[in-house]
Amino acid sequence: MYTIGIDVGGMSIKIGVVDANGKILIQDRFKTENTADVCVDKMVDMINALLVKLSIDISSIRGIGVGCPGSVEREKGLVKHLPNLNWYDYPLVEKLKKSFNVEIIISNDANVATLAETIYGSAKNFNTSVMFTLGTGVGGGVVIDKKLYEGGCSQGTELGHLTLVLGGLACTCGRRGCIERYVSATALIGQTKDAMISDKNSLMWEEVNGDINNVNGKTAFECEKKGDITAKAVVDKYVEYLSESIMNMCNVFRPDVFILGGGISAQGENLTKRIDEYCLKFDYGYKGAPVPKLVTATLGNDAGIVGAAALLMQK
Amino acid sequence: MYTIGIDVGGMSIKIGVVDANGKILIQDRFKTENTADVCVDKMVDMINALLVKLSIDISSIRGIGVGCPGSVEREKGLVKHLPNLNWYDYPLVEKLKKSFNVEIIISNDANVATLAETIYGSAKNFNTSVMFTLGTGVGGGVVIDKKLYEGGCSQGTELGHLTLVLGGLACTCGRRGCIERYVSATALIGQTKDAMISDKNSLMWEEVNGDINNVNGKTAFECEKKGDITAKAVVDKYVEYLSESIMNMCNVFRPDVFILGGGISAQGENLTKRIDEYCLKFDYGYKGAPVPKLVTATLGNDAGIVGAAALLMQK
Repeated sequence: MYTIGIDVGGMSIKIGVVDANGKILIQDRFKTENTADVCVDKMVDMINALLVKLSIDISSIRGIGVGCPGSVEREKGLVKHLPNLNWYDYPLVEKLKKSFNVEIIISNDANVATLAETIYGSAKNFNTSVMFTLGTGVGGGVVIDKKLYEGGCSQGTELGHLTLVLGGLACTCGRRGCIERYVSATALIGQTKDAMISDKNSLMWEEVNGDINNVNGKTAFECEKKGDITAKAVVDKYVEYLSESIMNMCNVFRPDVFILGGGISAQGENLTKRIDEYCLKFDYGYKGAPVPKLVTATLGNDAGIVGAAALLMQK
Repeated sequence: MYTIGIDVGGMSIKIGVVDANGKILIQDRFKTENTADVCVDKMVDMINALLVKLSIDISSIRGIGVGCPGSVEREKGLVKHLPNLNWYDYPLVEKLKKSFNVEIIISNDANVATLAETIYGSAKNFNTSVMFTLGTGVGGGVVIDKKLYEGGCSQGTELGHLTLVLGGLACTCGRRGCIERYVSATALIGQTKDAMISDKNSLMWEEVNGDINNVNGKTAFECEKKGDITAKAVVDKYVEYLSESIMNMCNVFRPDVFILGGGISAQGENLTKRIDEYCLKFDYGYKGAPVPKLVTATLGNDAGIVGAAALLMQK
């Protein structure tokens, strides 16, 4: 039996057929259109085309899993709130069911990535994991005993939206001082730019060819390696924000493993060693409590498809 | 069948025999001694005496539950860290087993209180709850689908020890800016004293007969009712701290109900209405997410015994 995984993203929708070992046998993608119904039609066509290419029919498919950014209500099969694509309260599962009479499950993209990493990826040797995806925003996911935990009405584990700095920077969620505003790639880029503006002699200016618009999530890390003090200060502060956020989640879930995903996690051990040093000073959050392993995601762009498919294997 | 609940506190240990409806049939208590072994001997004697008074023997007892402050490891039956009583890595379950050959389960006191309230108390009509106990410190508990959730190695849900104010007040856990330092009764008393020191004309001075050592967790609430502006500012700020902490937990667990326990919760609706007003401005934490009910604990001092007994009913 196979499973179909659909990874809905802001720019494109990726679809793959996944085997029982989490291997993607075939995949394809299309650019997102601005009406949801058009996207669904394209999904249906693409799924049928993939099945033809594999010479199998829908009876070989156990079900379809969908990972979707924004806010999703699993039980109702709804995409509640996906402003990037202008989808609101869209009954995606019901729409897909019209073409495929199989089980269809929808979940948040960060949840799906966490599930993928914990079953097939960086955390496959562990049972209980918490993940931060460090991208444009910060997504959060929790897997407990190899099962996805989504919170009440599948609308918990919005781990990027916990206050880290009371009364701090305004967040897109409407609150202030959320983790997302301090540890996302967007936040790190902002912190890097701020530091450059106050130090015109920083090597970071050279790194970006004198144009601050070229700053990305790697700029500070690269220049720290070259000995730039201002870049080091940016990284130190970023490590503090991220470490405190991680310790908070340890005190809630006390997972076996903590996974970092998203663009920033490409720093690998360069980042995790620094976080480990910081967190170990505080027992990872509470006196004598068990210390989780800290890893970076390994499935990369495949996590969306694989994790979506894995939603079907959770029973 | 009956269950025995043991509520270990800093000052006394309370023991009760509880029926299948969570009713305490009989209870007694003794002051804590400074060796754990002496306490265990007294527990054994007291349990036997209670059984005699009820004219039942241990064969009518389904098991023994223990709620204990500090850090507890359920699977090993250990009290890991209970500085108030000077108990460290103490094998309480093994010690009790020598006298009673029944199932014995140990958990953290805040966990036990949350379980009691969710099964028999203020949250009995709900399935999933999160609780803060607002006392000397801040304890946290989580019940998911009427089952206690304790986190990995039963050492999660230390909900008082999440950073609310990055780099803020030093906490007993070794970190800085923890929720506990802002929303515990101790914290509120400190906030009240600080406000009084900076306003010698505040009504709060009259309330405490001119002696700042008489300040307690009610002082600011009482004087706010009488129109004191400084007292109102203290309560407003406390409501902000507590509301932000509650919204953080909503974004993690999205519970049906949020329970406030401990001394401060005696303010009842006077407090919950204020928090509701604050939190509703932010959808209780995330755009359009379901809004939890907010209640105060109703079982009072019985929660420890009843909740400890309820640990046995969790399978």
